[in-house]
Amino acid sequence: DPGADNDLYINQAIVFIEDAIQYRSINHRVDSKSLWLYRWYYSRTCQWILGLTITIILALAFVEKPSSLTITSDVRYRLPAWNPPCGLTESVELLCFLVFVVDVSVKSYLIGWEEFWKNKWLMAYILTLIVSLTDWIVSLSFFCTENVRIRRILRPFFLLQNSSMMKKTLKSINSTLPEMASVVLLLAVHLSLFTMFAMLLFARTKDGQQDKEWMGYFRNLPDSLTSLLVLLTTANNPDVMIPAYSKNRAYSIFFILFTVLGNLFLMNLLTAIIYNQFRGYLLKSVQSSLFRRRLGIRAAFEVLSSLKETPANAQQSYVSAGALLRVLQKVEMDSRCKQAIMRSLKTCSCDQLSASQFQKLFEELDKDAIKQHPPSPEYQSHFMQKMQFAFGHSYFGYLGNVVALANIVSICVVLVMDADKQPSERDDFFLGAINCFFILYYLLEMLLKILAMGLKRYLSYPSNRFDGLLTVILLVLEIATFAVYGFPHPGWRPEFLGLLSLWDMVRLVNMLIVFRFLRIIPNMKFMALVVTTLLDLVKNLRAFAGILVVVFYAFAITGIMLFKGAVVPIGNYYLSRRNVILWLSFLFGNFQAEVVYCVLYILSVNLICRWAKIYFVAWWLISSVIWVNLFVALLLENFIHKWDRRCHREPLSDIEYQRTVELMFRDVLEEPTEEELMEKLHQHPHLQLCR
Amino acid sequence: DPGADNDLYINQAIVFIEDAIQYRSINHRVDSKSLWLYRWYYSRTCQWILGLTITIILALAFVEKPSSLTITSDVRYRLPAWNPPCGLTESVELLCFLVFVVDVSVKSYLIGWEEFWKNKWLMAYILTLIVSLTDWIVSLSFFCTENVRIRRILRPFFLLQNSSMMKKTLKSINSTLPEMASVVLLLAVHLSLFTMFAMLLFARTKDGQQDKEWMGYFRNLPDSLTSLLVLLTTANNPDVMIPAYSKNRAYSIFFILFTVLGNLFLMNLLTAIIYNQFRGYLLKSVQSSLFRRRLGIRAAFEVLSSLKETPANAQQSYVSAGALLRVLQKVEMDSRCKQAIMRSLKTCSCDQLSASQFQKLFEELDKDAIKQHPPSPEYQSHFMQKMQFAFGHSYFGYLGNVVALANIVSICVVLVMDADKQPSERDDFFLGAINCFFILYYLLEMLLKILAMGLKRYLSYPSNRFDGLLTVILLVLEIATFAVYGFPHPGWRPEFLGLLSLWDMVRLVNMLIVFRFLRIIPNMKFMALVVTTLLDLVKNLRAFAGILVVVFYAFAITGIMLFKGAVVPIGNYYLSRRNVILWLSFLFGNFQAEVVYCVLYILSVNLICRWAKIYFVAWWLISSVIWVNLFVALLLENFIHKWDRRCHREPLSDIEYQRTVELMFRDVLEEPTEEELMEKLHQHPHLQLCR
Repeated sequence: DPGADNDLYINQAIVFIEDAIQYRSINHRVDSKSLWLYRWYYSRTCQWILGLTITIILALAFVEKPSSLTITSDVRYRLPAWNPPCGLTESVELLCFLVFVVDVSVKSYLIGWEEFWKNKWLMAYILTLIVSLTDWIVSLSFFCTENVRIRRILRPFFLLQNSSMMKKTLKSINSTLPEMASVVLLLAVHLSLFTMFAMLLFARTKDGQQDKEWMGYFRNLPDSLTSLLVLLTTANNPDVMIPAYSKNRAYSIFFILFTVLGNLFLMNLLTAIIYNQFRGYLLKSVQSSLFRRRLGIRAAFEVLSSLKETPANAQQSYVSAGALLRVLQKVEMDSRCKQAIMRSLKTCSCDQLSASQFQKLFEELDKDAIKQHPPSPEYQSHFMQKMQFAFGHSYFGYLGNVVALANIVSICVVLVMDADKQPSERDDFFLGAINCFFILYYLLEMLLKILAMGLKRYLSYPSNRFDGLLTVILLVLEIATFAVYGFPHPGWRPEFLGLLSLWDMVRLVNMLIVFRFLRIIPNMKFMALVVTTLLDLVKNLRAFAGILVVVFYAFAITGIMLFKGAVVPIGNYYLSRRNVILWLSFLFGNFQAEVVYCVLYILSVNLICRWAKIYFVAWWLISSVIWVNLFVALLLENFIHKWDRRCHREPLSDIEYQRTVELMFRDVLEEPTEEELMEKLHQHPHLQLCR
Repeated sequence: DPGADNDLYINQAIVFIEDAIQYRSINHRVDSKSLWLYRWYYSRTCQWILGLTITIILALAFVEKPSSLTITSDVRYRLPAWNPPCGLTESVELLCFLVFVVDVSVKSYLIGWEEFWKNKWLMAYILTLIVSLTDWIVSLSFFCTENVRIRRILRPFFLLQNSSMMKKTLKSINSTLPEMASVVLLLAVHLSLFTMFAMLLFARTKDGQQDKEWMGYFRNLPDSLTSLLVLLTTANNPDVMIPAYSKNRAYSIFFILFTVLGNLFLMNLLTAIIYNQFRGYLLKSVQSSLFRRRLGIRAAFEVLSSLKETPANAQQSYVSAGALLRVLQKVEMDSRCKQAIMRSLKTCSCDQLSASQFQKLFEELDKDAIKQHPPSPEYQSHFMQKMQFAFGHSYFGYLGNVVALANIVSICVVLVMDADKQPSERDDFFLGAINCFFILYYLLEMLLKILAMGLKRYLSYPSNRFDGLLTVILLVLEIATFAVYGFPHPGWRPEFLGLLSLWDMVRLVNMLIVFRFLRIIPNMKFMALVVTTLLDLVKNLRAFAGILVVVFYAFAITGIMLFKGAVVPIGNYYLSRRNVILWLSFLFGNFQAEVVYCVLYILSVNLICRWAKIYFVAWWLISSVIWVNLFVALLLENFIHKWDRRCHREPLSDIEYQRTVELMFRDVLEEPTEEELMEKLHQHPHLQLCR
């Protein structure tokens, strides 16, 4: 039936083009029903539901039994957290699991059985679901009183498997592991040799008077190891060396040698290794995205060229413009792009498209949306034109910056003057009057700019939107203040009224004013460069951040399970003080945020203390050492690339916030050759090409 | 007089070739007397005297009045340091100054007056000398009782100006300063905005109960600024956020935002900037060294070609082999290189050398000394041959490593077992017996290896030298122990005899055994790579280390002057705890190493405290931020280059310790062209070339 065949080809072309737009793989089933299922699965609604399910199942940890949804983290003051009844969170969980079961079945069906057996991620997905469901049944049959819930540690896997970027990143990290392991081994050797040295050097002396160092830090092997490990994070420096140093200055050589070798050389060696591995990472990932896009377009061309309506041509295959138009109308894509492609299809005025012409049409997809700001209004009156010139000029913007700076300085002066005053002595009049004046200026500035530029043009600049929004909020707050507390006058110290006290209102206004000051950023070239690079970085870091969330989550849940009910003694010092306590205490139900020294508990909870040590060392290695280094590597990569570009060509006057990673690398990307594309197409497991 | 002319040319060629060997500039006077002076000035003796003078003048700080040459650093216990009488250190100083005066005069004379006025370093040198001498006269006329000694801060300049590498590095750092300043400005903006936020957020509340955060960290503007600055170094994290966090978990968002933006983004941005600037630094410096070498050789060729004995040739200039031989005999250079050049000159058997032939002869200089290990002795006896095979085999080396590991483990076990014992309960017999056994094995291993390889071949391996030396020392120590305390037996706990107690002897032996364990390094590939790279890095870092010494010295002297006689309160926390206290207390005479909190002294020494804050912030910026980043940049550069090489070709079986920086970059270096060389030669201020 040629009509049905033609419909199938059209549908295939639609799906392939959508794959190309979304950088998806085209290796899925291509019969009519599967195509319908595929489009349904990748429709916005379905993907949104899947995302929501993942969010819900991850967020369950906040309300589940050892929950930490309390305002204060201090165990002495906080009220007992709300405990959901047994079965409530469990039924939500079951719903989520059902969604995942549907998800994994559809996915497995769509890629086909042969592919399924090769796909380890899908297998792991199914395994995770089976384990989770079993654990869920066990949990319900114990009426939620069981201690260990394996499924909670497995949860972040659902986040991981749903993002192809994260899977790719994980693969990259995985390939770096052997070299990282070598450095960690080196660190271990370094640590153990120095520990032995330390134990011999700071041994117990016979007189027992001067062995403070031995008492405090090198009493036995685990203590010595811990002391030096913590010294590696520089958290207990210089405390650890003070007793020895005050006995004999020469002892400092030992500590300096240890720190220089360990912290300066070996730790930075890790940075170097990771940077070296990730140097090409971004480029490679963008390159493979490009390949997927070109492949999808080429596949669409190939299926369209097998349409019966095209004349059989032995030498080259062609696609009729009409068929492409029909496909385009059904493809879901950015309307601007679609219109641009249709326009160039019409201007081309060719009836038959060759492969390269076809490919060229879709290059519109790679192009950046060039943002056209709407025109300013044209005034007839001469006075208005002058006004427009004056207030549309960039100097007016600079004046606004100067006024914002003056406001900041005035707030600062008042804060310094009020610093040592009692709250009752404080006169809120001065700050109130100043703010009133400045907010009026901001309002005026906004109105004049809108007058000069027209509302549409004004709103088309992100800096103006930021500015305008904050001005409106400030205005609303100020009006609310006046409505509740009346106009400012000397000795303006009214009683508490309404939601917030006057002092709180003023503080809030001031904070917003400080925040509004950030509008100066685009005016400073270097700052603008830094900020745009940071924004780019945030985009590129999403996959890493996702993996970090996965690791955090798993660690937090493990921590809850390990240290359940016990006040956690966290090592003789706060190991890797940077953020461990901070981040973990977000999720830990009964984690005391105030630092409790292990020493106090060493007798009663010795076992837990040792577990805690291992736990925190693992945490420090992963979060502080590996992740921070990954971050530094990516930052180096991004910045250096950006700088090189900046040197090559002058920056545009207007900073374009729309810049994507693909565009950043456009100059260095390689277009895939026709042979590569066709070879890949012929390897497609479900698509049989005629030729 | 053609004979005198010829002698002059020969001498010029000698000096130019020596310049080329030492990578020196050839822009100096070239008349006979100046050449003699030049060779005298760059002779080993003169340069050694100059180096010694610099060392002496820098070391004076250790014995001068607020000296710190005491064993303990604890002000409570230590004896008053030796105070040299007035005039002693001053006369040593005067001697040093006189040497510097001679140095600067010779240098200025040699480069000529026109060049002198362009050379800012020489001008600064003279200025420094004038200021120092004036200060010295003032000092003596006050009988050493004056408070401020400017000349002590100026001392490191003498170190700086004597090294061309350091001057070059300083220039590179200087060119990075504008971008670094931008980031530091960004950091300052970041800090001040967040300080204002913090002061508004953690303001004094009316009830006065819950404002622990305000009390502790954000009482006024300087306090808030300090708290957040210290948070940037993560030294007071998480202490600073605990009060706010235990009030409301949401406050942590403020601190996390501050730390992520400041510490993770902006600080690493600094790394990226510095790395980006220094990426080509090593290559560029090696490239310019190569240019100097080629230029020196070429200059020698040009002057030799103007010798009267060569036949006038209109087209090309030639140098006679005889003249070159005469020059070579007088040049001071590595004898291996000299012989190699003479040998190839003879085998070439050409009478006239063209420029390229001449250049080619001297390429021997760039070549690495290929280390030929002497051959093993050849034994006649069949038994001896078998012995030689067995003990010369690499498995015998591995066995040695295993035994060393076993020794380490046994020491470790004894240490763990003895950890909690009183010194009087400890039985030294076990450790003594074990060590005795192992040291005998080490001795046997060394002797067998010498037997198998012959003494010369054995000593030609650095790992064997390390091994052998330690074995001999261990043997001597062991024999000394037996001589003093007799042979080990159970209950071996003799009284204190001789220089060291038995326990100290055993500890020393054990430490040496742990140290000896490092011999395994060359056997592990990755470790060997890391270690060789580190050694390379140390070579490349000499210039940076020199600059660091200069900065340290200046800071330490400033510190002594600023905080003279006062117990130094060092800020509310120990700012940049890493190494400030440590390093500075090396030189600070009256710097209390035990941490004294500023709070205690805030009323009495408020002024000093504020100075101390500024001083320590500056110190932190320079030592911790900038220098550590420079170090990371160089490390990245070195490692990445090395890894790329490792990927390109397989590593040699034997690690070559002789590898120089020049060799590392040989593949990428560009040879200077003939035009460049000749252009540079024609710009020479003192050499008039005939053509």
